[in-house]
Amino acid sequence: QENQPSTFGNGLLNLTGKDSTWSSKIGVRMQLLSISSWSKNDNGFGNPEQNFLVRRARLKFDGFVYSPKLQYKIELGLSNRDISGGSEFTRNTPRYVMDAVVKWNFYQNFELWFGQTKLPGNIERVISSANLQQVDRSLLNSQFNIDRDIGFQLRHHFTLGKNTLVREKFAFSQGEGRNVTEGNLGGHQYTTRLELLPFGNFTSKGDYSGADLKREKTIKLMLGATYDINKDAVKTRSNLGKYMVNDIGFFETDISTVFLDAMLKYQGFSFMGEYADRDSETPIALNSDGSETGDTVLVGNALNLQTGYLFKNNWEISGRFTNIDLNQEITGKEDQKQFTLGVSKYIVGHKLKVQTDLSYLTLSMGNDELMWRLQMEVHL
Amino acid sequence: QENQPSTFGNGLLNLTGKDSTWSSKIGVRMQLLSISSWSKNDNGFGNPEQNFLVRRARLKFDGFVYSPKLQYKIELGLSNRDISGGSEFTRNTPRYVMDAVVKWNFYQNFELWFGQTKLPGNIERVISSANLQQVDRSLLNSQFNIDRDIGFQLRHHFTLGKNTLVREKFAFSQGEGRNVTEGNLGGHQYTTRLELLPFGNFTSKGDYSGADLKREKTIKLMLGATYDINKDAVKTRSNLGKYMVNDIGFFETDISTVFLDAMLKYQGFSFMGEYADRDSETPIALNSDGSETGDTVLVGNALNLQTGYLFKNNWEISGRFTNIDLNQEITGKEDQKQFTLGVSKYIVGHKLKVQTDLSYLTLSMGNDELMWRLQMEVHL
Amino acid sequence: QENQPSTFGNGLLNLTGKDSTWSSKIGVRMQLLSISSWSKNDNGFGNPEQNFLVRRARLKFDGFVYSPKLQYKIELGLSNRDISGGSEFTRNTPRYVMDAVVKWNFYQNFELWFGQTKLPGNIERVISSANLQQVDRSLLNSQFNIDRDIGFQLRHHFTLGKNTLVREKFAFSQGEGRNVTEGNLGGHQYTTRLELLPFGNFTSKGDYSGADLKREKTIKLMLGATYDINKDAVKTRSNLGKYMVNDIGFFETDISTVFLDAMLKYQGFSFMGEYADRDSETPIALNSDGSETGDTVLVGNALNLQTGYLFKNNWEISGRFTNIDLNQEITGKEDQKQFTLGVSKYIVGHKLKVQTDLSYLTLSMGNDELMWRLQMEVHL
Repeated sequence: QENQPSTFGNGLLNLTGKDSTWSSKIGVRMQLLSISSWSKNDNGFGNPEQNFLVRRARLKFDGFVYSPKLQYKIELGLSNRDISGGSEFTRNTPRYVMDAVVKWNFYQNFELWFGQTKLPGNIERVISSANLQQVDRSLLNSQFNIDRDIGFQLRHHFTLGKNTLVREKFAFSQGEGRNVTEGNLGGHQYTTRLELLPFGNFTSKGDYSGADLKREKTIKLMLGATYDINKDAVKTRSNLGKYMVNDIGFFETDISTVFLDAMLKYQGFSFMGEYADRDSETPIALNSDGSETGDTVLVGNALNLQTGYLFKNNWEISGRFTNIDLNQEITGKEDQKQFTLGVSKYIVGHKLKVQTDLSYLTLSMGNDELMWRLQMEVHL
Repeated sequence: QENQPSTFGNGLLNLTGKDSTWSSKIGVRMQLLSISSWSKNDNGFGNPEQNFLVRRARLKFDGFVYSPKLQYKIELGLSNRDISGGSEFTRNTPRYVMDAVVKWNFYQNFELWFGQTKLPGNIERVISSANLQQVDRSLLNSQFNIDRDIGFQLRHHFTLGKNTLVREKFAFSQGEGRNVTEGNLGGHQYTTRLELLPFGNFTSKGDYSGADLKREKTIKLMLGATYDINKDAVKTRSNLGKYMVNDIGFFETDISTVFLDAMLKYQGFSFMGEYADRDSETPIALNSDGSETGDTVLVGNALNLQTGYLFKNNWEISGRFTNIDLNQEITGKEDQKQFTLGVSKYIVGHKLKVQTDLSYLTLSMGNDELMWRLQMEVHL
Repeated sequence: QENQPSTFGNGLLNLTGKDSTWSSKIGVRMQLLSISSWSKNDNGFGNPEQNFLVRRARLKFDGFVYSPKLQYKIELGLSNRDISGGSEFTRNTPRYVMDAVVKWNFYQNFELWFGQTKLPGNIERVISSANLQQVDRSLLNSQFNIDRDIGFQLRHHFTLGKNTLVREKFAFSQGEGRNVTEGNLGGHQYTTRLELLPFGNFTSKGDYSGADLKREKTIKLMLGATYDINKDAVKTRSNLGKYMVNDIGFFETDISTVFLDAMLKYQGFSFMGEYADRDSETPIALNSDGSETGDTVLVGNALNLQTGYLFKNNWEISGRFTNIDLNQEITGKEDQKQFTLGVSKYIVGHKLKVQTDLSYLTLSMGNDELMWRLQMEVHL
């Protein structure tokens, strides 16, 4: 009932209202990034590019109101990268609100969510960008994730047998991504995710956090599968990507996305694997007369494998392999393979850390690329 | 002098500075909205549209500095709907600041305000969007209100006879709405409002709040009248609407707006009535050679009547009738009548509530429309 | 270790984490401004213009994390003027983040900074806009300053002889100003600044604050010199101004900026002087075939002299003379001289103040202008 100061990493403020009628944890964070890249040509690596940026900066409020069974979360993006992506469908304004959601535990293990937040998609996407093992997420994520959307979610969990935790998540969403203000083009989006944790829960939600900072004493495993169907979708990557404009408005087609993923942690070792597949009824966008508009749904699949080991001194070494295999005939996109070697120093867990990684990207048609990144995260 | 935690609904933080040299109440809120609509055709209602959105989200700071006689308020919009409306006159930036105002009680019952805030216009507009009786304001408001502007306000109040409270409000403003950074086109805007409360003050500022949550034991009534004149206005709805561009810059004309309104509350029953009228010297925008530009000032009038009854269990039922009668000859706009039936559940007053309403809109020329809305408000 | 309320002017919140593992001071401020101007014609002064605006509004977080040797600062702009200047290079989003920087005191008097913040340029620019002696900065600053940028800074200070404090500041930056997200055009920017304080440190950082609010008992003086070189710069004012687009992308040229400045304070009297000079290898932007694009680097120099006296009652009178001498042959810009007379009332130092000033601008080719400004600052 008192507003005690927090230890570092537990929010700027941890408020509890009088008579415990509400609570609020206020957090603020920033990521400072340096990227250098070189492309391969006949003489080796050349054409250097360098960029410093405030990659992410956020302000967060979460807690409960009225009863601990009624929780809320508001997260605001502050950096230019966070708030980009506005269009006439967001009233030509920046996409400032990340999350604005209410979660109601209305009965036993059931929760009903209303508002804008992340969909129950691939694990890598749902892990907060503050809690990543490497500098940033993989190419699988950037090309296949289903991000945030607005609508309802129903969540439930139960224990199967002695140990196996099962979580079921269902979302009914607008289907055009976050911050859309102007109507709902096409149909709605339906997402179902099932998670199995055969050895029980991870410590401190470690299934949705990179690196085994808790050094799990026994093996912990999460297996997840998501099926997402976006009815009459109008964007090239389901609820993300480019709007498929045609002569009579928008080309609409059903787009399905499947994710299979796993997270394993044990004594400082962690492994994350993900497979993604996007398919569409009619992947080539058409005008009313049947001619092609030039847009295509980015159908294809991808694989991402990532592993790391955390040393006693909180230095971690990690490796990642990502393979992107978009349907070249339809999308015209070349295959991509990326190898990433990462080193992280967790000064105060994910709240204060320095991370660096080196990535080598091979393209089936273009020039290979080398990229070196250095990032610092400060999270109060 | 202590920073005590608040009960729910009294701000995230209620700070008082050492030696009481300042105070600050920090609040945050969001409105999550679902809208569904259908238009009437020969086969009944069809063409369904559905939209989820973060309708409003705000961050607020208010309190006093130096002396309780010097108050300030800063309110920031966070949602895409809140911050839309930017243009070259706002330096092509979103309209993030809602209020930024200082209020100085310089002598007895006199207050001088400087900055950007709501003008003393129609009551429905001045009631915070957090304290509405139905999901959102009426069509009268969206078409006739004079919103926020920047400049000075002078306010005074006194008691007439035994009980009658009289309030006088005068504003001198830039006249082009909020967040304009680039000069002042046309002339200034002058607003005068007079309020009579024959049975004294409402409980807890209930005259500027929807629903009789305080269940007034005796009848409370406010009668208000506003006269607003915007000299050489350049927008179609006084300080709102579209800029009236012509061949030599902007068409300028005087636009006057009159509001007559009333609020009555008694034992859970509430009634709000408003009449609005907009007139202009030269409502049809002209080029320098006298030819018409195609823009017109939206002259006409409107009536809004709204009533509600709050049951003991904090459920409320409400009804609204709105009639919009723009001058069709000049504006080309058809007449509109809207009937709205609302149901609200005030879980913790206006701070945590669920509201739904069903509206039927009849248009003199077009197709009728049915709209169903569901909204949740969380306000810390 | 307790979160005590602050006295006015020391932040909205002054938080110290449990076990002193972090701290955070949260501040919020706004500037409300009225500008009136007249231009001189044959009949005296005419053509009046008037504008009210929220000139600046900010939210600030600063403190340390993990150890007092590791400091951070986040400053966000809120007003439309603060956040303007977005372009395709900021992903078409407003420039919301002012500062996002980490400062590490890694060894004795050495500090390493990483992130976005002000460069060590002219003194007037580095003085916070909250701590100015007059309503706003001079024309020298608006035309010659090197603002904020992103990258690394190395800072060191030492005492020379008995009293003389010496500060050295070096910055390595992206070179295109703040909030750039899309790559680094041209080369990097290198800034070196040296400061001499022959009579030791000012009270309460008074060298970087307008007005001698501390009424220094002995003379205090700071002499500073900055040399800045922006390699292959693509903007007309080094890291500010217009992008110099040409037929093959961007015209690139080295741009150097030199500042010489001084600050003196003694018993309520203050004097600030600045000289600025911008030069370029090739000031006229060219296409690939050698034809001129029409853009030019704004080469030239400027002088700014400012002085003020603070009376016992915290009223201050100040005067400023600014001379702008851009190379007319290259830039086509006329000479400007501005005389400003200012009056400030510091109610609670720079935290709550009212300022007004009257400026007379003479142009070598155009019409003279008179400008009157009135501003209020509230800073919690």
